[in-house]
Amino acid sequence: MKIQAYAAEKAKGRLEPFTYDAEIGEHDVLVRVQFCGICHSDVHLADGDWGEVYPLVPGHEVVGEVVDLGMGVRRLRRGARVGVGWQCDSCGDCEWCKAHEEVLCATHKATCMGHHGGFADHVVANERFAIPLPAGLDGAAAAPLMCGGATVYTPLREWSREGSRVAVVGIGGLGHLALQFASKMGRHVTAISTRADKEAEARSFGAHEFLVGTPEPGRYDAILNTAHATMDMDAYVAALRPKGAFVQLGVGSEPLAINAFGLIPTYKKVAGSAIGHPSVIEEMLDFAAKKGVAAKVQVLPMSAVNEALELTRKNRARYRVVLQAGA
Amino acid sequence: MKIQAYAAEKAKGRLEPFTYDAEIGEHDVLVRVQFCGICHSDVHLADGDWGEVYPLVPGHEVVGEVVDLGMGVRRLRRGARVGVGWQCDSCGDCEWCKAHEEVLCATHKATCMGHHGGFADHVVANERFAIPLPAGLDGAAAAPLMCGGATVYTPLREWSREGSRVAVVGIGGLGHLALQFASKMGRHVTAISTRADKEAEARSFGAHEFLVGTPEPGRYDAILNTAHATMDMDAYVAALRPKGAFVQLGVGSEPLAINAFGLIPTYKKVAGSAIGHPSVIEEMLDFAAKKGVAAKVQVLPMSAVNEALELTRKNRARYRVVLQAGA
Repeated sequence: MKIQAYAAEKAKGRLEPFTYDAEIGEHDVLVRVQFCGICHSDVHLADGDWGEVYPLVPGHEVVGEVVDLGMGVRRLRRGARVGVGWQCDSCGDCEWCKAHEEVLCATHKATCMGHHGGFADHVVANERFAIPLPAGLDGAAAAPLMCGGATVYTPLREWSREGSRVAVVGIGGLGHLALQFASKMGRHVTAISTRADKEAEARSFGAHEFLVGTPEPGRYDAILNTAHATMDMDAYVAALRPKGAFVQLGVGSEPLAINAFGLIPTYKKVAGSAIGHPSVIEEMLDFAAKKGVAAKVQVLPMSAVNEALELTRKNRARYRVVLQAGA
Repeated sequence: MKIQAYAAEKAKGRLEPFTYDAEIGEHDVLVRVQFCGICHSDVHLADGDWGEVYPLVPGHEVVGEVVDLGMGVRRLRRGARVGVGWQCDSCGDCEWCKAHEEVLCATHKATCMGHHGGFADHVVANERFAIPLPAGLDGAAAAPLMCGGATVYTPLREWSREGSRVAVVGIGGLGHLALQFASKMGRHVTAISTRADKEAEARSFGAHEFLVGTPEPGRYDAILNTAHATMDMDAYVAALRPKGAFVQLGVGSEPLAINAFGLIPTYKKVAGSAIGHPSVIEEMLDFAAKKGVAAKVQVLPMSAVNEALELTRKNRARYRVVLQAGA
């Protein structure tokens, strides 16, 4: 089957209409794209920050409908509404896949790196990575959950508990979801921004406190850093409570400079966290449906893909741009 | 009661005989020192690296006998053989103390900072921090377990499991204990050193593999860094398996430079780890007695304290210098 997509042929090039032949493997599903969110990773890929990945069809925050199935598909039927995130396949057989930690699989396949992504009318994914969407979720508002939502839910689940004090640094695409999940997971939530004018919205997303500037020492069990700027890591590590974790979610241009004396006496850590395993995404979607977590989105037609990417590139998305297919 | 000790009056000064009046609080015990190990922290304190702490009686790896008790002591009797490590008191009442994580107590008192330590004929400690020593342990070989042993046992317990691959960087006072604990805890253990001539001894301590140079990628569930030199953190983070932890135990002169891209995709972390909580020290001593973990020590008389400190300062201890009181 022919898939109509938008692709970049080179780094920083405009995305142009692009047609390719889909191959639907035995355990794959073909998903008709309804919505696809735009994540900063799509910008990094389009701008060549992550290497030669062209022709590139970006897009890894897909919500759509299963319209075709490989012969071996058992979990999904035609007509199912599903979400597809960053990962679209894994070996299914290694120690990590068997432990339901598919993100760690050495043959992890990404939806839009070495595979054509969701800026298209259809996308192909292994059935294990097409996660059924709970009925209560709005399609456009749910699309950014598939990567952004999973990216913040995963470390909140790992590094905080009910009643924990959590700080979220950066109130953008990831940050506004982190505030919602954290507050609805029963954490005491502080939003940290460089911009005082974000206070009202940060509070509307669930922040109990709002802070511009350096956090005070010994306050947080977990700090989720969604910002890309270089941080004063001494201050942020000091801002952790004993055993606390500073979790880095975005990739900045400079290494984090960590003084061991900050980490050692009270067992602190600096952790990386990526996307969610399928079972965690499923749990996250279920939580979002029950508790009313939704991305705040600007919906643009898929044909406006270049303008939409530019909004994300310039940090002007409030808070996530979502492309609507067939619009 | 008068305690005869050795004290430095200023940074880098020689330790000289020093007498002070002991106060034994309601919940304190007076321990007659039999052995006291020398840790790099004692050198840092004596050299002024950690501030103005003078007069300083170093020493926080004590093995000795309880010879006097405060009125409120319930757990210990005269004649008990105990060990005292880095910490000698805590409030006993905060959230951390109640959770048996006394190291994290905000009023944590150190044995030889703001309190006179174990380079002496006696030392005072709260009874909760005078840990009964299992009968099977040799006093001199057990002294370094009180700080060095607890420092390596704690992260092995936290960041590895039976069958985990563990690397120990630096085969000195901490490292030679880490190799023993890790192998006897059922980990697959690699010793990493800058010196090829340490291979035979590293293997005798339990290393299954020995490596000089840069570790290969994707090998270790946990890397314990006991060395003080600046590390190529990109290589060491890359050497972790997914979800692995690089655990920093020593304080170097430069910050660790951590690239977020190394941590994020497979949920890796860089963690600090300090000393052990009393319950963990008790568990560690019990394990050491059952499995035959013992520091390899050079025993010198307490009167040779300055020469002994110099061996540790110059990394010439093989592998831990222990002072013997009354000798």
